[in-house]
Amino acid sequence: MSAPPQYPLAVSLGDPAGIGPEVIAKCWDNRDQFGLPAFVAIGDPRSLANVWDGPIEVVDDPRQADAAFDYGLPLIQLNAAEADVPGHPSVAGAHTCLDSLEIAVGLARSGSASAVVTGPVAKEQLYAIGFQHPGQTEFVAERCGISPGNVAMMLAGPTLRTVPVTTHLPLVEVPRALSSALIESRGRAALRGLQRNFGILEPRLAVSGLNPHAGEGGQLGREEIEIIERAIAALAAEGWRVSGPHPADTMFHDRARANYDAALCMYHDQALIPIKALHFEEAVNMTLGLPIVRTAPDHGTAFDIAGQDRADPRPMAAAMRMAAQSAAYRAEAA
Amino acid sequence: MSAPPQYPLAVSLGDPAGIGPEVIAKCWDNRDQFGLPAFVAIGDPRSLANVWDGPIEVVDDPRQADAAFDYGLPLIQLNAAEADVPGHPSVAGAHTCLDSLEIAVGLARSGSASAVVTGPVAKEQLYAIGFQHPGQTEFVAERCGISPGNVAMMLAGPTLRTVPVTTHLPLVEVPRALSSALIESRGRAALRGLQRNFGILEPRLAVSGLNPHAGEGGQLGREEIEIIERAIAALAAEGWRVSGPHPADTMFHDRARANYDAALCMYHDQALIPIKALHFEEAVNMTLGLPIVRTAPDHGTAFDIAGQDRADPRPMAAAMRMAAQSAAYRAEAA
Repeated sequence: MSAPPQYPLAVSLGDPAGIGPEVIAKCWDNRDQFGLPAFVAIGDPRSLANVWDGPIEVVDDPRQADAAFDYGLPLIQLNAAEADVPGHPSVAGAHTCLDSLEIAVGLARSGSASAVVTGPVAKEQLYAIGFQHPGQTEFVAERCGISPGNVAMMLAGPTLRTVPVTTHLPLVEVPRALSSALIESRGRAALRGLQRNFGILEPRLAVSGLNPHAGEGGQLGREEIEIIERAIAALAAEGWRVSGPHPADTMFHDRARANYDAALCMYHDQALIPIKALHFEEAVNMTLGLPIVRTAPDHGTAFDIAGQDRADPRPMAAAMRMAAQSAAYRAEAA
Repeated sequence: MSAPPQYPLAVSLGDPAGIGPEVIAKCWDNRDQFGLPAFVAIGDPRSLANVWDGPIEVVDDPRQADAAFDYGLPLIQLNAAEADVPGHPSVAGAHTCLDSLEIAVGLARSGSASAVVTGPVAKEQLYAIGFQHPGQTEFVAERCGISPGNVAMMLAGPTLRTVPVTTHLPLVEVPRALSSALIESRGRAALRGLQRNFGILEPRLAVSGLNPHAGEGGQLGREEIEIIERAIAALAAEGWRVSGPHPADTMFHDRARANYDAALCMYHDQALIPIKALHFEEAVNMTLGLPIVRTAPDHGTAFDIAGQDRADPRPMAAAMRMAAQSAAYRAEAA
């Protein structure tokens, strides 16, 4: 294990009317209990003051955050056109939200921050101000000069990591969206991500089938034979340790999970059902394939409970810890 | 709680070359530790002797099983045309397997046994001797005079029960196989099953969506709006407590599971991934909608490990306990 990275995490508040500011403030409150590294938030101080009465330490440079962290929540200050109201997303809030994300990514790109952790955003609000990406992941990829096809979303908890090949598609479109090339590309991103972000030198990837019983030899579907097996063979030919296609229902119990470092799943719920069943409070969303480390808690803005002191900060804390750990692995390898 | 049912469980050995005989014998060995009721197995004694050197008590009538149970494994004896070899399924074994199932169902139908527990079978072997049902569930339904469309498979563990609407279909065929009528029918079977087999007077059913985020208001698929919501409304109009459609990925964590007694899922892996991730050693397959109680361990014949003393008897023990408990609930209500 290397020393902690020298620079703090850059944390975007997410939509200021969502639960992002609250969970980030609660993370600072519980920084010792949660075992958190120094971080600097980016946003409008009013978004924090709306939901929290703790001390804020406005900083100009992330490198001041480490010294300030004991005294208050370090914040790079943005000034929204108008103050936001928890639970009521606004156009002004969407602009601040996007600026915060942009700055956080820039700080990590420049090396002034060790990694980016992003608070939850509401896509509808961002679309309303001209945002054209499917989500934050694709935005971050573009700002890093990476094609969205070459990044992958990993959901990571204490005993399971999953990577979906397809994400936000109607289920009926999943079979035709699958190709050997796409599975290979996501698999490669997953394997390299396990090396770079988790320090696993020879990562093991378990690939799921699409159909019940992984198609049962073609009786219950042929995608395993025609698409998935080819991708597995291609990755194996590159020297990667890849197994499958495995029946998805028997991949996620204790003993099965011990056989791999990440599961590559064919669609959204196949990847997200097991991670959330097992690790709901600790599931972290990590983007693989970027030149920087980026994590996020695996929950949304939860406008319905914003401003009520009911939001659980543990997923955000898990995202911060994982970002710092991954940055340390990268620093060690560099 | 009522007294235990008066009559024993009838237990079919399943394919004699699979792990059925071994796990049933191990259940008898560990009957006190596992908290098992008296049961009578049905099969060829050589299938047990192949893998076990414990005492067998051959009985003619299940009612003798209770007295015999302390001395040996009660067995209603069948005589296969030839002895089976563990790990090597045969035509003779398939005939014995089917006879065993037939007798077990008959004993429960006549009231001589309190419930049926079925050992795992290999469908390929059964098809080779003219079996025409998709699986044991449909065979048992037919022998009980129930249309297969009106029964439902429940997977039940200590903290979760799931019921798939569709089962062994290629994933691409799932959307077009769904209809409001089918969802209603399975939902009704699930709700009545919770009442009859689990003693829950006012059962709560949570219905999943088909698509990621339950379709996100139609953005990620329209089956929720066009098919699933109608079925939920129809069941609610009958007075049942039904909720949904819920995003499948957030239905299965601790707090979510506390809100329902069973989850109605749209396809095989949506129902089986969470139950096996959480309860792999204790998942029981129960058929709902029958005049009798029928359970099975949720695993296959495992020919690859048959005869090696490696099979885990805990799923079979869980199936026996659940069958006895359900029979007791039914006896109490009668």
